[in-house]
Amino acid sequence: MTETLILHEYALSGNCYKIRLTAAHLGLVLERREYDIMKGETRTPAFLATVSPNGRIPVLQVGDRFLPESNAACWYLADGSHLLPADRFDRADDLRWMCWEQYNHEPNIATLRFWKAFLGEDKLSELQRAQLEGKWMAGHDALCLMERHLAKNDWFAGGAFSLADICLYAYTHVAGEGGFTLSRYPAVEAWLARVAAQPGHVTIDA
Amino acid sequence: MTETLILHEYALSGNCYKIRLTAAHLGLVLERREYDIMKGETRTPAFLATVSPNGRIPVLQVGDRFLPESNAACWYLADGSHLLPADRFDRADDLRWMCWEQYNHEPNIATLRFWKAFLGEDKLSELQRAQLEGKWMAGHDALCLMERHLAKNDWFAGGAFSLADICLYAYTHVAGEGGFTLSRYPAVEAWLARVAAQPGHVTIDA
Repeated sequence: MTETLILHEYALSGNCYKIRLTAAHLGLVLERREYDIMKGETRTPAFLATVSPNGRIPVLQVGDRFLPESNAACWYLADGSHLLPADRFDRADDLRWMCWEQYNHEPNIATLRFWKAFLGEDKLSELQRAQLEGKWMAGHDALCLMERHLAKNDWFAGGAFSLADICLYAYTHVAGEGGFTLSRYPAVEAWLARVAAQPGHVTIDA
Repeated sequence: MTETLILHEYALSGNCYKIRLTAAHLGLVLERREYDIMKGETRTPAFLATVSPNGRIPVLQVGDRFLPESNAACWYLADGSHLLPADRFDRADDLRWMCWEQYNHEPNIATLRFWKAFLGEDKLSELQRAQLEGKWMAGHDALCLMERHLAKNDWFAGGAFSLADICLYAYTHVAGEGGFTLSRYPAVEAWLARVAAQPGHVTIDA
């Protein structure tokens, strides 16, 4: 890739970490621009007009073009690389796990982490508090689904470490910050260790 | 494609319609298997063990392999076709809009349609009722974001009709069933008409 890559991010967000971890495995250099989401820095008129109309990070800037959505940014970087399966079905299956993560895993496991470890439970609205139990149960269901898959498979798609593993690793490995007990999911814990042992791995605070 | 394609679905779901609309534009034949989600037919032990561990439709069956998640199924069908941009950035941008739809559009616009037109407002739980206003506002925000994009662009990505348009069309064109007034979003309405006028278009009840 010849164009400059700039990651607009909040570094502790798992969705931003996914992109850094993907880039690390591909040997790509990212410039990083940090925004304080607690201070609304991604909702300013300038951010909405130039970086993303959706007012969220991460956004990957490629030259002068902007790509929101973590899955899309990871896919852009990994397109055609060893991080995506060469087989058409396996490649779609990789995307399947990435989509599942954003719909069934992230809104529960990442949201509980954000509410508990970043916002603070005493700062939650009544509606947020009413959703705590449902999100806890749905997060547990997501971890159980991963556990069943990983009891029979080393990796999520295509029989090898791939983009789906990177995207699922990001919020799973910090699920404890949202109140989940990862030792209850031993196959998930073993897979987390396999991902962290891959050459090129970087940590969320790197 | 030489393998038999079977769509496990609930036909009125927009997520299932996306896959049928993609197949129609590609001239692909899908066998269809209908499940009554109201009766829990996607949560039976047999469904969970063979079709999808997530207990949701749609699932695209390709020969003897199963692919859950609507975006992944659409991507599988469209991979390498005219429905995905040939340019790497544009292709990722297509995926970006598909991801945005699943995270910011569908959980609001499709959920309100399901709650109001399928479940019935009198059947909602207290927690669901407490979420009505937030989902209405977030759905409106999603339609406004589409309106601003479509005021300046005919299509969502790559300057041509593509998979992102198909995926966004599915729940947008029936947003009225969830209580949204589409005439308040004239650029969205004009785009809906452009999508429906594409050769090969099929309706949700076809």
